[in-house]
Amino acid sequence: MSTARRRPGRRGADAGNRGKILAAAAKRFTELGFRATTIRGVAADAGVDPALVHYFFGTKEQLFAQAMALPLDPGAVVEEMLAPGVDGVGRRLAARLLQVLDETAPANPVLALIRSATAHESAATMLREFLTAAVLNRITAALDVDRAELRAALCASQVVGLIVAREVVGLPALRTTDRAVLAGIYGDTLQRYLTEPL
Amino acid sequence: MSTARRRPGRRGADAGNRGKILAAAAKRFTELGFRATTIRGVAADAGVDPALVHYFFGTKEQLFAQAMALPLDPGAVVEEMLAPGVDGVGRRLAARLLQVLDETAPANPVLALIRSATAHESAATMLREFLTAAVLNRITAALDVDRAELRAALCASQVVGLIVAREVVGLPALRTTDRAVLAGIYGDTLQRYLTEPL
Repeated sequence: MSTARRRPGRRGADAGNRGKILAAAAKRFTELGFRATTIRGVAADAGVDPALVHYFFGTKEQLFAQAMALPLDPGAVVEEMLAPGVDGVGRRLAARLLQVLDETAPANPVLALIRSATAHESAATMLREFLTAAVLNRITAALDVDRAELRAALCASQVVGLIVAREVVGLPALRTTDRAVLAGIYGDTLQRYLTEPL
Repeated sequence: MSTARRRPGRRGADAGNRGKILAAAAKRFTELGFRATTIRGVAADAGVDPALVHYFFGTKEQLFAQAMALPLDPGAVVEEMLAPGVDGVGRRLAARLLQVLDETAPANPVLALIRSATAHESAATMLREFLTAAVLNRITAALDVDRAELRAALCASQVVGLIVAREVVGLPALRTTDRAVLAGIYGDTLQRYLTEPL
């Protein structure tokens, strides 16, 4: 699809369609959850062809990340971190997370997701389904150890906690400590959760 | 104060005063933060004598816990867990936390606190100041190791993350895994954060 030729005069129409698709996607994801939302349904709501949704936004995961204004596609990051193998993946994940937090703070859209999830059961479902499909299942599939699902969930709990404690509550020690030091400490925790005996 | 004699006919007045005090406290804590809120100020707003606030609610920390409808006073719990020493404190804390979560779910008032903190800077300040005064400073004072403030904050990040991932996002593996197993895993993390080399 990326080789399709676009006429220059279509820029305005493109922007309009992108906006319609993102709005329709945000509504469907929030109301139906991640799993039950389809590209086809989003396209219908936006009044465009499903192929245009794929053309603009890629996969359903990528559409979600953009509809929720996430600074990146978590699934792609996890895949990249896991690519060299599980050795050292904890530190790679922690370092990247801290870097992204510093680059996107203070208006981190992740906080909006967490806020919604604490307020609405439907938003919590959406977040759980997206995390499971985009992040946790990828981690589980990459692990060759017992209790893979629990291990992925343990990691998610420390990642979410770091985000909330550092960016929402704003604990000073987590803001002033050198990022490399934090990445080492949290990286060791994630690595233990992923590959060491529990 | 607990030996003061109360006339039976005062029950209605007591209930009214308790309600007024809790409402005034919730408003002051939310607007001014934990540090700047005083028992004297709360009493003035509620139109009662400061001694009555102490009589009904004890310390400022205890008043906060009750004004925010927390299932317990976190400071008192941390003190109890630390009393036998830092050996094994990680597992004691994790086990108690999981027990309280199971007993108070799903309407956990902690979630309301986290939701407010993601929405309002003033609520985030309140939560940070309360956590620091009631929980983190107690932990820091009990530790005879380097980086005590960072260690307390690391623990807070895992505790908050466990609460959010299990109770808000509702990750299945954290809900179905035996509580004793989870207490062991998270207890080891907390213990490492508190007393092992970082």
